Amino acid sequence: MIDLTDAPPVPACAFASDNAAGAHPLVMEAMLRVNSGHALAYGSDHHTAETEARFRDLFGPQTEAFLVWNGTGANVMSLATMVRPADAVICSEWAHIAVDETGAPERALGAKLIPRPAPDGKLRPESITALAHYLGDQHHVQPGVVSITQSTELGSLYTPGEIAAIADAAHSLGMTVHLDGSRISNATAALGGTVAALRSFTVDAGVDVISFGGTKAGLVGGEAVVYLNPALAQRAKFVRKSVNQLPSKMRFIAAQFNALLHDDLWIRLAEHSNAMGRRLYEATVDIPGVRYDAAPEVNSVFPILPADRIKPLQEWCFFWDWDVARHQVRWMTAWDTTEDDIDRFAAGVRAFLA
Amino acid sequence: MIDLTDAPPVPACAFASDNAAGAHPLVMEAMLRVNSGHALAYGSDHHTAETEARFRDLFGPQTEAFLVWNGTGANVMSLATMVRPADAVICSEWAHIAVDETGAPERALGAKLIPRPAPDGKLRPESITALAHYLGDQHHVQPGVVSITQSTELGSLYTPGEIAAIADAAHSLGMTVHLDGSRISNATAALGGTVAALRSFTVDAGVDVISFGGTKAGLVGGEAVVYLNPALAQRAKFVRKSVNQLPSKMRFIAAQFNALLHDDLWIRLAEHSNAMGRRLYEATVDIPGVRYDAAPEVNSVFPILPADRIKPLQEWCFFWDWDVARHQVRWMTAWDTTEDDIDRFAAGVRAFLA
Amino acid sequence: MIDLTDAPPVPACAFASDNAAGAHPLVMEAMLRVNSGHALAYGSDHHTAETEARFRDLFGPQTEAFLVWNGTGANVMSLATMVRPADAVICSEWAHIAVDETGAPERALGAKLIPRPAPDGKLRPESITALAHYLGDQHHVQPGVVSITQSTELGSLYTPGEIAAIADAAHSLGMTVHLDGSRISNATAALGGTVAALRSFTVDAGVDVISFGGTKAGLVGGEAVVYLNPALAQRAKFVRKSVNQLPSKMRFIAAQFNALLHDDLWIRLAEHSNAMGRRLYEATVDIPGVRYDAAPEVNSVFPILPADRIKPLQEWCFFWDWDVARHQVRWMTAWDTTEDDIDRFAAGVRAFLA
Amino acid sequence: MIDLTDAPPVPACAFASDNAAGAHPLVMEAMLRVNSGHALAYGSDHHTAETEARFRDLFGPQTEAFLVWNGTGANVMSLATMVRPADAVICSEWAHIAVDETGAPERALGAKLIPRPAPDGKLRPESITALAHYLGDQHHVQPGVVSITQSTELGSLYTPGEIAAIADAAHSLGMTVHLDGSRISNATAALGGTVAALRSFTVDAGVDVISFGGTKAGLVGGEAVVYLNPALAQRAKFVRKSVNQLPSKMRFIAAQFNALLHDDLWIRLAEHSNAMGRRLYEATVDIPGVRYDAAPEVNSVFPILPADRIKPLQEWCFFWDWDVARHQVRWMTAWDTTEDDIDRFAAGVRAFLA
Repeated sequence: MIDLTDAPPVPACAFASDNAAGAHPLVMEAMLRVNSGHALAYGSDHHTAETEARFRDLFGPQTEAFLVWNGTGANVMSLATMVRPADAVICSEWAHIAVDETGAPERALGAKLIPRPAPDGKLRPESITALAHYLGDQHHVQPGVVSITQSTELGSLYTPGEIAAIADAAHSLGMTVHLDGSRISNATAALGGTVAALRSFTVDAGVDVISFGGTKAGLVGGEAVVYLNPALAQRAKFVRKSVNQLPSKMRFIAAQFNALLHDDLWIRLAEHSNAMGRRLYEATVDIPGVRYDAAPEVNSVFPILPADRIKPLQEWCFFWDWDVARHQVRWMTAWDTTEDDIDRFAAGVRAFLA
Repeated sequence: MIDLTDAPPVPACAFASDNAAGAHPLVMEAMLRVNSGHALAYGSDHHTAETEARFRDLFGPQTEAFLVWNGTGANVMSLATMVRPADAVICSEWAHIAVDETGAPERALGAKLIPRPAPDGKLRPESITALAHYLGDQHHVQPGVVSITQSTELGSLYTPGEIAAIADAAHSLGMTVHLDGSRISNATAALGGTVAALRSFTVDAGVDVISFGGTKAGLVGGEAVVYLNPALAQRAKFVRKSVNQLPSKMRFIAAQFNALLHDDLWIRLAEHSNAMGRRLYEATVDIPGVRYDAAPEVNSVFPILPADRIKPLQEWCFFWDWDVARHQVRWMTAWDTTEDDIDRFAAGVRAFLA
Repeated sequence: MIDLTDAPPVPACAFASDNAAGAHPLVMEAMLRVNSGHALAYGSDHHTAETEARFRDLFGPQTEAFLVWNGTGANVMSLATMVRPADAVICSEWAHIAVDETGAPERALGAKLIPRPAPDGKLRPESITALAHYLGDQHHVQPGVVSITQSTELGSLYTPGEIAAIADAAHSLGMTVHLDGSRISNATAALGGTVAALRSFTVDAGVDVISFGGTKAGLVGGEAVVYLNPALAQRAKFVRKSVNQLPSKMRFIAAQFNALLHDDLWIRLAEHSNAMGRRLYEATVDIPGVRYDAAPEVNSVFPILPADRIKPLQEWCFFWDWDVARHQVRWMTAWDTTEDDIDRFAAGVRAFLA
Repeated sequence: MIDLTDAPPVPACAFASDNAAGAHPLVMEAMLRVNSGHALAYGSDHHTAETEARFRDLFGPQTEAFLVWNGTGANVMSLATMVRPADAVICSEWAHIAVDETGAPERALGAKLIPRPAPDGKLRPESITALAHYLGDQHHVQPGVVSITQSTELGSLYTPGEIAAIADAAHSLGMTVHLDGSRISNATAALGGTVAALRSFTVDAGVDVISFGGTKAGLVGGEAVVYLNPALAQRAKFVRKSVNQLPSKMRFIAAQFNALLHDDLWIRLAEHSNAMGRRLYEATVDIPGVRYDAAPEVNSVFPILPADRIKPLQEWCFFWDWDVARHQVRWMTAWDTTEDDIDRFAAGVRAFLA
């Protein structure tokens, strides 16, 4: 095995996460452009009105969108408008809300999350119907919301039909459906790369509320809570502030979204990062010592590596562990990953595993 | 009374609030400058390390600073690390946390705020000691935290001695002290305009935790929770995420603070906005029909106007009502208010009140 | 002034509180009677069904009643089924929920209570309408529930018309009305002593949910949450358990209520304790040194005493301070107070004040 | 198969649950005895002082005990004094707190429970250490409390050594240990039937806080939160009221405990119900069609029955389903189960399965 002094050149951008990337130049430019003069705070400005209109264009005229700071905040705000007293939230055992948000949902909601087994990160209708016997029993929390992630925390994708089946199961039991779309752009790109594709697995499939991700898609920072079911939006503006998610100088978040949503930039960037994920897979799948469970569907790959090579590789070009017991790691591309980054990285992997 | 068609030219910047202003050019430039390549998210980047060091420079080496999104979030995070089970928070009846945060503290803390009478927006030691009989009584919440705002929601200022007296009263009863410094830069400017001035009413006065405001001081968006008492910071990083306040691409908030804290820019900008507040007062105090309770201490003035002139004036150049019963309104300057803005505005007031 | 050795005989029952009394013999007998064999827990027993029917008899066929452990629990459960996300609860500054429940409502609801000035312990319609401008403003909690106490914490009474006016004001603003009836039996006795009297200030006046007190009325322990507005009861049984208020061997609470509600025992006992309150007032009002603001309406009197006689009197026969600054104390009668207790107590007061 | 008309005589007491039983005569007698005259409420009475002393006798002089209403309340109060901000509670997947309390812990604590796989209802040290990598990671809740149940929800028992090993693992990671002792009397009886046995798996094993069950052991209703680690009791009296668990006429709960704890009545009753569980097992294990995974350790048995005989048997003499998929049911004995009840029940099972 080589050591760091012999190692090939390090990629300009590493593969730690898509939130290690910066902001797209058009996004930055938009922030600069709106930084002129005064604008009323808290959303009473015309940039925010434009963003709201853009979300209506995407999802239909009944849509109500609320800008917020971050993904955890978007999820907490969404759920806080969806749960009724004593309700619980069904989610996958890998759900970001259940595993990676330091209990923010439980703190804000005072409600239980019920994680369900999901080896591929995806719920099934049976994940929901299996808990139907809780309904009406005073000793159990009442499952009232189903939260799915698209694309999932494991890099997998629901088909539109799969989401529709989950929504049908949920609605037939009186539950509503939340979609954590922290990487909804990657999912949209992977499922066709059009607004119609986006609609197919959201509004057409029966989703009620979306956490619509912007940060990982190329913003400095910003997410939106998008109500496809406007009945659930009745308390939204109050709840947003009550969970610390009302941006003061909101024009700066609106401007970012207006740039990102213009001319489908968000889809184009996600197509690129998905393609880079595919390229990374292809550039490494045949390297002796690298094993994959599956080819990537979006912008993350989960290789299994020889145990003793992981640490040296991370020191050369950082990435995160995934399943330590299996020696599985995660490599993630972003909107700004280049082919050169991948070529260099693959060369490094080959060198360290030789 | 004139109507809008006869009205003098409208100021370039109105007087609605200091968060209607944009970001200072050096702040924007700093954001642009760090938007290059990848940086680990969630604070594991060197820009954030620099911000942390800058806060240690301000307050002393024991200081721990945590960047967050917004003022309500900073307050909620601060308090969430300070309250013990069944504790309550003593604050003024005008406190932002009590009146203007849509119950975010109660939601996140599950704790009571106890608003105390404060005609000038300021607590007194007696505001605290008067509740000492609650301590130890199982039927009452236990006052455990005192939260003061500097400068206050009414534009008033505590002297360093006043804060020290409050902190002494609080500490002697086993309570800790939080300072909501949403406008801490204006207070610092008004109390001397030096880092020594800042220290005189915070670390030297016995304050334990500060919500250190950045947004109103000239940022796009960003605040810091600053622990002067490091014992209270032990759970801070976990609590930050659990109240949805952990920024993902944190370098962009750090860069803003690094620009703002460099060469005391934050103090210089606040001195300017305070001076503009003074100028606005002086330019209007003699206009017939305008009454003031007091001259401004920082960047807001609270004139009482003839009832029937308020609405026309607001239509000409928007500002907010304050105490509707008294026909009192609020005019607020910002870091970017110009002398020309004030001259035009004063001319308009004079014209509408003629 | 006499000392304890010269003091007259101490009353058999003191005047500390109506919850210092034990249980009525018929209540005890009922508990004994149902302690035979097995009965399904958690309310699936015929004694509980009988209690539910008794509450329908009192308030009408739409009524839904839920047995709980204690008054704080009844209040918390009631409010937890009434508040919507970001709602707040309007109450008097003297309200038990605001002052004497150690923050239990804030903890369970994550919501703010808004205490309103109420020198006589009673809200007015204006207490509610004055906060109407909060509605729709995203920066403020949304007042959604009005909670009144009947009879109040100060021993005062609302007339049925006063409650109807409050309920009208609340309902016209989209709020619902909770009545803390910890001493609802004393109020019923004072307002006519009939079920019609009870209905006049509850269901007929527009109250939505009642915390119906049993403990102070003569039970060992037990309260009921009574929904006059059944729409609010939809989640009640789940919420009851989620706030730790679902009794396991519920037959024993049901049996107590069945005894208390039988043949209007609850009204008869309250008439007695009210009469004893009146007698206590009359027996002491002319004692030199005793001053009263008002004659009692129910079972508590609030005399002002010479400062130096309070402590010796309390050592002779314990009672609680009320307003220390005014040297005001509280003497409270109960269902078991006897004329002899009062005569002895009045003799003692006279002796200690001589 | 027989039908109901041919069925043998129904037992006097069914096998639904130990909380379907009433109260022991000595407990009832004690309640009657203290129902005389006045006693200060909320624990300021000598009966409560006696109970506190009795718990010190059981566990040592450092012990602090607090009487509460019910098991869910005892668990919530315990945990509310144990969790620090952003802490989570590790428990078994079968834990009552996780499954059967309608989310009461999440509501009161705003904290996550982490259910761990436990096929026999018991945690292992590895259940805890496997989550050690959460500690210090800001994206994850911080496991701070381990909650075990003794005897478990599945009728199994921890040995004292097993609990000591769990407590060692927990303490070495900075966590504290809660024991849900809803059936601690059955566990004590099964592990030796002495106070020494009780101490062996609690105070001697390193448990910090116990929910000490009274209701299922023969009370009308009442539980105790017992602090073996007095540092955790500092806020206990305030927290008790803040979770609605402060009994008003506390003497009546104290009297019950004083009767139950006198002369080890609680152990004797549990020995009886355990013996009845054993007898029930032996009387049915050989009935064709009845299958058991294991012999009972305490007072519950979990037979697997022919699918089509469960419902008729339940109609004859009610009991609860356990694992519907496996046709497994639960039969539970109580302090008042008689040998005749078992003989009749076994005869019924034999008849219905014939």
